[in-house]
Formats: sequence, structure tokens, C-alpha cells
Amino acid sequence: MNNFTFYAPTFFAFGKDTENDAGAYVKRFGGTKVLIHYGGGSVVRSGLLDRVKASLDREAIPYVLLGGVQPNPKSDLVYTGIDLCKKESVDFLLAVGGGSTIDSAKAISMGALYDGDFWDFYSGKKIERALPVATVLTIAAAGSEGSTNTVITHKGFKRGTGSDVLRPKFSILNPALTQTLPPYQTACGITDIMAHLYERYLTRTTDVEVTDRMIEALLLTMIHEAPRVIADPNCYEARANIMWAGMMAHNNSCGVGRTQDWNSHSIEHELSAMYDCAHGAGLAVTMPAVFTYVMHRDVMRFAQIAVRVWGCEMDFANPENTARAGIEALRKFLISIGMPQSFAELGAKEEDIPHMVDVLCNGNGRPGYIDGFVRLYPEDCEKIYRLMI
Amino acid sequence: MNNFTFYAPTFFAFGKDTENDAGAYVKRFGGTKVLIHYGGGSVVRSGLLDRVKASLDREAIPYVLLGGVQPNPKSDLVYTGIDLCKKESVDFLLAVGGGSTIDSAKAISMGALYDGDFWDFYSGKKIERALPVATVLTIAAAGSEGSTNTVITHKGFKRGTGSDVLRPKFSILNPALTQTLPPYQTACGITDIMAHLYERYLTRTTDVEVTDRMIEALLLTMIHEAPRVIADPNCYEARANIMWAGMMAHNNSCGVGRTQDWNSHSIEHELSAMYDCAHGAGLAVTMPAVFTYVMHRDVMRFAQIAVRVWGCEMDFANPENTARAGIEALRKFLISIGMPQSFAELGAKEEDIPHMVDVLCNGNGRPGYIDGFVRLYPEDCEKIYRLMI
Repeated sequence: MNNFTFYAPTFFAFGKDTENDAGAYVKRFGGTKVLIHYGGGSVVRSGLLDRVKASLDREAIPYVLLGGVQPNPKSDLVYTGIDLCKKESVDFLLAVGGGSTIDSAKAISMGALYDGDFWDFYSGKKIERALPVATVLTIAAAGSEGSTNTVITHKGFKRGTGSDVLRPKFSILNPALTQTLPPYQTACGITDIMAHLYERYLTRTTDVEVTDRMIEALLLTMIHEAPRVIADPNCYEARANIMWAGMMAHNNSCGVGRTQDWNSHSIEHELSAMYDCAHGAGLAVTMPAVFTYVMHRDVMRFAQIAVRVWGCEMDFANPENTARAGIEALRKFLISIGMPQSFAELGAKEEDIPHMVDVLCNGNGRPGYIDGFVRLYPEDCEKIYRLMI
Repeated sequence: MNNFTFYAPTFFAFGKDTENDAGAYVKRFGGTKVLIHYGGGSVVRSGLLDRVKASLDREAIPYVLLGGVQPNPKSDLVYTGIDLCKKESVDFLLAVGGGSTIDSAKAISMGALYDGDFWDFYSGKKIERALPVATVLTIAAAGSEGSTNTVITHKGFKRGTGSDVLRPKFSILNPALTQTLPPYQTACGITDIMAHLYERYLTRTTDVEVTDRMIEALLLTMIHEAPRVIADPNCYEARANIMWAGMMAHNNSCGVGRTQDWNSHSIEHELSAMYDCAHGAGLAVTMPAVFTYVMHRDVMRFAQIAVRVWGCEMDFANPENTARAGIEALRKFLISIGMPQSFAELGAKEEDIPHMVDVLCNGNGRPGYIDGFVRLYPEDCEKIYRLMI
């Protein structure tokens, strides 16, 4: 196991009706002027935004509003939010929504205390400080409610960054808020959570049984709960299990002390940046292709997840068969919950591959490759994209 | 899943040589005058105490010393520590040792900011504040390095309490520091970690797949790593896996949203209070007896852990056989790592049972029973103790 530090000081309030305590938690964590950041219709239509506003009113905490976050959140609204924070002397950001809203809020939180362009932080600049961010989560997916991370799209680049400074002060996780999600969005979230686990599972570090087992546990949970929630979107208990698993999948307690991959995420980001497809849907297409391409780096690792997570029979004479069976089980599982499996279903085009490969490996200061479980050069990435066609 | 809150803001520095950063972390977390609390010989002999002192010297942070913590830590030294903190204006406690030392430091941390008797907090008084505590851990066992909990023995009562206020500010986990532990102590620690997992697994809450799976993952880790470390005490990698599992087993991320048991701990505490046996050794004797007695409350829960964790075959015609096989597998595993299995091996005496049962169910304000997975009255507890003979 590698040396590591781990610091996850987010306060979680989990369960029914917990959004009504948002104002009290803002007060507890020192907010005196809040920017409520959110997406669009559903948060307003469901009355959630009103309940959150009412909870702030009860604590006499003033707030300003900034809605309109889109999936694959863009820099435009981040700049608007930064200006608003500075103009209104906001000292606390409350994101009401999913990963896109939270990521946008994290970007604003850095920019609000910085004189330069916030995009510097997505281009390698070290993150020193940020306004406190908190969340009221509406979809189990990105894990941003407990993570150090944020991903933003700017001038065609979809890039991520992270710091302990960006861990939310508190996150309100009410599984009931996710019951109204359309099945496709629910499935995209499930896929994203599973991808966060696979990205950590694919490690070059040996002898990491404890984190292997934790990742497997969370994947087994998703495999058990996902069909239930797809069959019955109102199933609170399945929603609850998925919601806690989604947070645990990405707060990094199961990723410490080991190298991680994240190449599937990078390869997918070019797809959602270019075609604005859902990140989870892009991952569903990307992961099987990447894993098939890289599995020879460590066949036994893929065999292990196949046996322990997917219940595949171990082929002792030819472990590669087991490894492939595990990747195939993942692919079939993703199809079973309604995820796409090809470029065409994402709206992606073969002729764009060279451009995507170039942006992926060279764009925004990248060194000519992407690194992770395996270092992938442009020719590798091109082959991987072609596996998805 | 039940509603819950979860807040675990301990900073962890994990890995080789991390104890040399203790002083820097004390500074980061605001300490200006430190009480270093420790046990006895090994921390001194190994040079660990000197390294920790040197790290404080490098930051020019003054400190006072209080050694002498014994296993099953007693109130006497807590009172001494409280007086010392008040006299020396200590504002930060650094526990260098195992669970006993950390628990003693947590007790001191409450008492130092309280005018009454610190024992009030172990008798039901709500914990409002405490001096910050941090740890340099020397045994994977109690999980106190990341938990809310502390257990102290006072006038024959061994009692626990807990609060988020008692979570350490930081904990330094260097697996190499545990390599010199005698095999018996190592095995006691392993047993304690497994007990923390079983106490959470035995729940009355249904539909808790995510936390079930996480607990199972940590138990599977222990079953995999324990024989390695017993066979080769110097195995850093096994020590590392066990150390992170021990923290995760008790920081409660796998215990949220569900009722927990803790009757095995309560029943054991009377044994270690009376005979001063090692807590882990007492648990090794206690757990199989308790589980055999309570398993009819939910046979399928015991069958599930038998199949998923112990690899038992499911007896579909008679799940009770599977449940029993799982308990037997646990018992044999504990024997295999050198743990005792009977009253006699603990130095316990049959004639003391009535007294222990009375203290257990009625002592220090208890209501005439202990509650958990099953509510146990004195006649139940007597039968359980007799199962251990």
C-alpha cells in the first residue's frame, strides 16, 4: 500500500425530509450570505427550491439565486456566479441539484476568491482556498457531494480538478428527492457510480486487499439495487442504498494507498464535451472498450473482479476467458438498465475521432498521452474509440 | 434505511515514517501546548516517543508528558491528566499508543474543559466540548483513532461513551509501528476489529445492502490478512490492510442508517473489568456464545454472513444449519489466530457470574437489561456467560 493522506470532513444529513434543515446547517457552518445554485425545472417544479429557501428564511439568512446549470456544466455560468458572489458579498454556496450543479458551485467557490481566471485551476494551478460549498443532492451519480472533485467544460475542453478545499461542508442526501428522476437519468447515475469504482479498482499497486474488497462491496451493492430501482423508481430503500454507495464510491476511502486509473473518464469527457451526451451514457460505451484494450496489463485483476463481483466461474486454464467474461457481464448489465453501447447511440461520429484524440492527448496542456492503469498514446486512444463504433 | 447524520472529520496520515510529521500536524490543527499521553515501555524503547517529541521540537511546540496508561484504562490516570492539563494550560492532546491510550486521552479531553467529575460523561451526561485530541497509533484494534468512542474503567464499572466532539483531529497510522507487537496482542486487535463489524452487522433494520456489503468486505479483508500477519509479523502489507480496515470498521461509515448491537461488547466489558483480560481475548470468548444465543432473532442474517463471509454452503432446507456453521467458522478462525475460547482461559470464574450479570444489567444506572440486536435480561445474560464455560 502506498503512503497517503485522507481527509473527508463533510457533514452528511441523510434521509427523509432532511432538506428542511439546510438553513440550520448553513448557520452551523458559518454562512451569512448564500448563493443558491441550481439547474432548472425539476428543482423548481418539485417545490424543493422553495423548501430550501424557506429553511434559510427560518434562520434569517439572506440569499441570492443563480439557476440554469446545464448537464456538462459550462464556464459561462461559472463566470456569472463568480461576479454575483463578488457583487453580493456571498460567503457560502449552496448547490441544489446533481453533480453538474455541485461542480459548477465548486468552480464558482474557487473563482470568487481569486483575481485571475478560474479556469487556471482546471489547467494545473494549485487550489489554495475557496468559499465553503454545501449541497442538497438530487441524483446519486457524480459523488461530488462528498468528493474533492469538479469537472467543467470551457471552450471545448472538459477538464477536472480537485482539492480537499472543495469538499462540501455539508451534504443533504434525501433519497426520496431522487424518486422522480426519469429511468434514463437514474441509469446514467448508476453507471457513473460504477465507473468511479472501476477507475479505482484498476490499479498498478499490489497487495491492496482492503480497498479491493470495499470497491467490490460497493459494486455488488449497485448490481443488487440497480434492477430494483429501474423496475420501481419509487423504491425508497433501493434509492437509499444507491445514494450512500454513490457517496462512498467517490469520497476516496476505497481509493487510498493505490494508484488509480481515470482513463475511461478522460476518454468519455471528449464525447460529452463534443456531443453533450450524458456523462453516464458516455461511460457505458467507453468502459467496456477501454477495459478490453487494457486488460492484458493485468489479466488476473480483471479475472478477480469477474469472479468476486460478477460471479463468473474462474477459468484456471485460461484466466483471460474469465477476465473477458467479467467485462462482458458489465456490458450486459449496463444494457439491462437501459444504457447505450455504441458511438451511434451517443450521437458520436467516426470522422471526429482524430480530433477527439488530439484534444484528449494534447489539449489544454496535456503531455501527448493520458496516464493511469496503462499509459495511452494517441494511437491507443484512437483504437479504443474505434472499438466503440 | 433509517435517517442518520455522519461526520468524520479526522485527517489521516497513513504510511511509513508518518509519525515524524506529528508536530507539523499539531501546528496545522491549532495546538500550542501539548500533553503527550502514552502507555509504557514499548513506545519509549522503540524510540517512537523520542521521534514524536523531536517533531514537536522542530515546530517549537512545548509539551508535557503523561505515561503509564494500562490496558483497560482506569480513571486514576484520567484524573491525573485532567489536573495536568488545567495546571499546564494544555490545549491539545496527543495520544501515542493504542486504543487504551487514545480512550484515556479522550476522557482527559472532556474533563479538562469541565468543572464536574469526568465520569458524568460515562454515566449519560451529554458531551458538549472537549480539547482537541490526535493520535499516533501503535496497534490496529480499537478503531478509536477514527471513532467517536472511548471506554474507561472506574470503580469496577467499564463503560463507554461517544460524541462527534471526540473524533481525533488527526491520526497518524504507520503500519510499521505495529510490526513489533507480540502475536497475541496482534490477534486481540484483529478480534476487536471483527467484533466492531459484527456488532454493526447484527441489525434489526432491513434493506441495508450497502452497509451489509461494506461490513462483509472488511471482514473478508481481516480473514485474508490475519493469517498472513500471524505467520509473518513483519509483513508490512498485511499490517497496512488490517490498519485501514480497523479504522473503517469503526468510523461508522459502514454502520449508518441501521440499528446496531453492541451486546457482545457490553457482556465482554464485565470480563475485562473484573479480570483485566485483554478486550479482544474476552470478545473471542463472548461472541460465539452471544451469537449462538441470539441467532433465532434472524436466522437468515446469520446465514447471510455465513455464506458471504465464511464461504459456507447455504442449506436451503434448513438455514439454521448455515447460520450455525458461520458462527462455528468464526470460532475456529479465532482459535487459529491464537485466541482463547473459554472462561477458564480468561481467568474467569463461574461463581462470579451472578455478580457480573448484576453489574451488566443494573450497574451505573442501567435499566435492568442491555439492548441491541436482542434485548437481554439478567436471565439471558447468565445463560450466555454459562455458554462460555
